[in-house]
Amino acid sequence: MTAAASLAEMLGGDLRPACAGLDLFEHELRRQGLQPESVRWHPPADGAAAAVAAAVALSEPAHQANRAAVSRIVSCRPHLVRIEPAQSAVGLERGTFLHAGPPIEWQDASGPLRGALAGAAVFEGLADSPQAAAASFETGDFSIEPCHGRGAVGPMAGVVSAAMPMLVLADGTGGQQAYCTLNEGLGKVLRFGAYSDEVIERLRWMRDVLAPVIDAVLKRLESIDVWALVSEALLMGDECHNRNRAATSLFLRAVGAALMELDCPAAQAAECFRFIARNDHFFLNVTMGAAKLTADRARGVTGSTVVVAMARNGTEFGIQLAGTGDDWFTGPSGVPKGLLFAGFTPQDANPDIGDSTITETVGLGAFAMAAAPAIVGFVGGTADTALNSTLAMYDITVGEHPSFRVAALDNRGTPVGIDAARVCRSGIWPVVNTGIAGKEPGTGQIGAGLVEPPLSCFEAALRSYAAKNPDIVGAAATWQARSS
Amino acid sequence: MTAAASLAEMLGGDLRPACAGLDLFEHELRRQGLQPESVRWHPPADGAAAAVAAAVALSEPAHQANRAAVSRIVSCRPHLVRIEPAQSAVGLERGTFLHAGPPIEWQDASGPLRGALAGAAVFEGLADSPQAAAASFETGDFSIEPCHGRGAVGPMAGVVSAAMPMLVLADGTGGQQAYCTLNEGLGKVLRFGAYSDEVIERLRWMRDVLAPVIDAVLKRLESIDVWALVSEALLMGDECHNRNRAATSLFLRAVGAALMELDCPAAQAAECFRFIARNDHFFLNVTMGAAKLTADRARGVTGSTVVVAMARNGTEFGIQLAGTGDDWFTGPSGVPKGLLFAGFTPQDANPDIGDSTITETVGLGAFAMAAAPAIVGFVGGTADTALNSTLAMYDITVGEHPSFRVAALDNRGTPVGIDAARVCRSGIWPVVNTGIAGKEPGTGQIGAGLVEPPLSCFEAALRSYAAKNPDIVGAAATWQARSS
Repeated sequence: MTAAASLAEMLGGDLRPACAGLDLFEHELRRQGLQPESVRWHPPADGAAAAVAAAVALSEPAHQANRAAVSRIVSCRPHLVRIEPAQSAVGLERGTFLHAGPPIEWQDASGPLRGALAGAAVFEGLADSPQAAAASFETGDFSIEPCHGRGAVGPMAGVVSAAMPMLVLADGTGGQQAYCTLNEGLGKVLRFGAYSDEVIERLRWMRDVLAPVIDAVLKRLESIDVWALVSEALLMGDECHNRNRAATSLFLRAVGAALMELDCPAAQAAECFRFIARNDHFFLNVTMGAAKLTADRARGVTGSTVVVAMARNGTEFGIQLAGTGDDWFTGPSGVPKGLLFAGFTPQDANPDIGDSTITETVGLGAFAMAAAPAIVGFVGGTADTALNSTLAMYDITVGEHPSFRVAALDNRGTPVGIDAARVCRSGIWPVVNTGIAGKEPGTGQIGAGLVEPPLSCFEAALRSYAAKNPDIVGAAATWQARSS
Repeated sequence: MTAAASLAEMLGGDLRPACAGLDLFEHELRRQGLQPESVRWHPPADGAAAAVAAAVALSEPAHQANRAAVSRIVSCRPHLVRIEPAQSAVGLERGTFLHAGPPIEWQDASGPLRGALAGAAVFEGLADSPQAAAASFETGDFSIEPCHGRGAVGPMAGVVSAAMPMLVLADGTGGQQAYCTLNEGLGKVLRFGAYSDEVIERLRWMRDVLAPVIDAVLKRLESIDVWALVSEALLMGDECHNRNRAATSLFLRAVGAALMELDCPAAQAAECFRFIARNDHFFLNVTMGAAKLTADRARGVTGSTVVVAMARNGTEFGIQLAGTGDDWFTGPSGVPKGLLFAGFTPQDANPDIGDSTITETVGLGAFAMAAAPAIVGFVGGTADTALNSTLAMYDITVGEHPSFRVAALDNRGTPVGIDAARVCRSGIWPVVNTGIAGKEPGTGQIGAGLVEPPLSCFEAALRSYAAKNPDIVGAAATWQARSS
């Protein structure tokens, strides 16, 4: 084509500016009546992490380690096998409480986490009031530690106490187990920091009625193949983090008949069925426990930069890599952008909190959002938002999940195995679907949306990786990483 | 741009032929290694129907009548209210049998219809064997008539006998009722023309156990809002004709607790729950009954060319229009193209059969296929096939359904209210999802796919419409239609 022709083509149509980075410029252009195209772009990692990322990209041993980590992840077949109290399941003693995300002190804990911890102490009968409980946490009479350290996960505040029933997940192929609490439902619930009497009452009913009944059902069924159910739910509009309507419905379909055949009062069986049927998110906790079991399979793969945990404690966002042991690498937790329930403003929102990002870690949640276009009504955006969230994640992942298929992408597997090196090279951050908690203790959920983790935790992880893997990263990059 | 430049552009890339009409040319080009683009195109209607279609397009009264017909359709709120025997529900006497599609004589009936009729006579105890039953149909001792004539519909053969339990659908806003049999499940079933002992035994169990139990549940729940459940299922990957997994799961979720609270033996309740849980298509018959009630609301709207029934008897495909009374307009029934179960060939397939096209008539089924990308694994094609099936139907429909939303289309309502005039003007036929029956009596289902109705029945409907509406069509077109 002639230069004149190409020039004519270039200037023929209307000009449309593209904006990246600061919203400021985009807003100004819109104010001036233009329709700028918003480009998803972030500055790449700092020099040190960038050098490590480049070294990893060129290292065949690192590639092999990452492929090994992902093949462990995709070969895991989690089964829900039983329900048992946290005391026996994860050896939790009364007075010790688990929480979501990386380690944190009471002094640094946000409102929802403090509210949930106080409520849990009242539930345990260790304090007469949330205020008295708070005092005991303040003085250190009660201790707190992360769920992840005990092979467990918890949504939002993720608080676990000794008497709470835990879902037990085991790999169909044997091996270790993972644990998650049962989902309480919507509205005022402990996981969002609420601790009123109705919240505590519900927790007691779940301990005394729901847990034993569902455990008895699991004994009848032997176990439930969680990924078989999840892969079906992905073909039914769930992404299995913020939308669990299909998975919860399939769970009820799977247990209903066995529930009727239990020798427990019919009214009690009906009460349990109704409790689950009224809560679309009931199955989320099963998926989370299964995802924890799955991600843990990749722990300790030397030389791998694959992420095995992403979690938030309401103050910090933390990650762990397959190749860097049990160290947490953290950065400030962001405030999710999305849709707020009526009567709330962005000022009411707490920074991102919860272990539920374990779903994104194994190729679900926002990584599977293309399977769930209806979710944008809950987290905001259009059908393209859902499609593009999944497509963008292929750039920072090592593999595609053979069991998690997206019909809208002609059954392509979801992106799985987040490579911290690719994140730092590309500046593309893992996208996360999340609920939004009110920052005041006792408020509960105020909305849902999308959030992006701080790049700094990926940079810190790569610097630590360099120190542990001089052979892969090379002396120069290792020195650069150390000295930065 | 210069002519030289545009010519360079035209010839720059690889040439890609587009094929329309006969498959012959496309196959030959593929044989020669080319990748032709298959274009969905049909010749427009014949001169007479084309003239009528053009007149309707220019007539404001016809537009008003069509808008009135569609507003009646989209305002219907069908509720499943109870289950009762066909004898009382539709006044069916023993010895008379209903069938799917337009009227037909036993002599013209295809294998699956004959098999189902014979099996139904055995089920009624009116014959000792399918052979004896066939003889009685042959001699006219037993009579047959269409389901549609009694306010009922039936999937595939759609055979109904006096003792069969019928789902009763009523409009939340009052008014008439509609009826459909209960779904038998998959494999060898009466509706696909099977009549072995297991088939008859299952029908007896459905009559004696399943129907009374579900009817008792409905009494407890008062009723089930069918479109509320269907609109949710559309957000969960169903198109509610050939994919009903979500709707069936939501139905079990809705009835499970009430089922446990019935004072019937727990084993019996569990047996019923299991029977439904094992059949993804259980809810199809509820949707069909609701669709029949909905489409019937538009009957008798003078001057309307909106289709109120599309149905196949295995030999002929027939339609009825809002503005042409109870007359059927028919053409030869086509053989569906899709995926066949292992061991079957296209030669084993029966021509299209069943009343289930009532779902497409009200904006579901293939008209809602964009909501169900996973269905292409059952009927063939890619995710684009599903998307494009829905998009193409907006060209031949009058409205968009306010309750049937497609998340992948940013919650656009499904195309609803097929305008026979637009079909004849555009040559775009309504696309239909359907099951494929074996043509030998007793075979059962052999696959599933897509089928297009014969244009001739739409042409015949418009000619009849012209005779009934000289004021709208005008003397000339009316004369042309009459004389053709």
